[in-house]
Amino acid sequence: MLSVALDEARAGYAEGGVPVGAALFSADGTLLGRGRNRRVQDGDPSTHGETAAFRAAGRRPSYRGTTMTTTLSPCWYCSGLILQFGISRVVVGEARTFEGRHEWLAGHGVEVVILDNAECADLMTAFVREQPRLWQEDIGAVSG
Amino acid sequence: MLSVALDEARAGYAEGGVPVGAALFSADGTLLGRGRNRRVQDGDPSTHGETAAFRAAGRRPSYRGTTMTTTLSPCWYCSGLILQFGISRVVVGEARTFEGRHEWLAGHGVEVVILDNAECADLMTAFVREQPRLWQEDIGAVSG
Repeated sequence: MLSVALDEARAGYAEGGVPVGAALFSADGTLLGRGRNRRVQDGDPSTHGETAAFRAAGRRPSYRGTTMTTTLSPCWYCSGLILQFGISRVVVGEARTFEGRHEWLAGHGVEVVILDNAECADLMTAFVREQPRLWQEDIGAVSG
Repeated sequence: MLSVALDEARAGYAEGGVPVGAALFSADGTLLGRGRNRRVQDGDPSTHGETAAFRAAGRRPSYRGTTMTTTLSPCWYCSGLILQFGISRVVVGEARTFEGRHEWLAGHGVEVVILDNAECADLMTAFVREQPRLWQEDIGAVSG
């Protein structure tokens, strides 16, 4: 299920964007929505990979049993999304280049799986090296 | 500054949507962005009032000194947004009809002001009475 998120992240990288992708799956493994960070592409700071996949899945009465896959450990914003809507499980491609709030999610009862996938890590490592300021902007970490 | 958020919430109510509005202001009080929940209007579950205002403000290197006004106490999703991007202050119209995560935000150093505004509360009270299932959907609280 990570491959869909990774394809989104790669597409984002090719577009010059922040290469984080995500996908939401139902309990039976059906793909509900997929997406990628669109800060650069749409000038939209509100669209992280996870929120893009969530939006693409459309309105749903419940997220019970769903799984969100994401290439990178989710930030506070995306972790809040996951917790608020009761997404049951999060599969994280890697948490090396950015340690998000997956431990906080686990403490709130969300099942968290960290894969430490080399392709996800290599993509983010290259991006952070090439565009450090864009990356800082995307996580609200620009000082001053 | 709450009046901009309240105007957005009223417009959302008139459209048959979830009547929560928000606005983001710079440290000197300049309006940066405003918006409202768009679940019904756009079929978009990812757009809460706060995320709409944040998106409308566009890309910014820093949110230091900014104030988010919102007609309703922010949920986990919107609280995560506020914390991740370092929005300094949140002015909440009311926390009667929904007690969100403003105490959690305050514990993380965000200045939180609760106004207990009667117009905000009346609008949400009417909405929750008229469309209880839509409201439950919007906060991920549909059981089953």
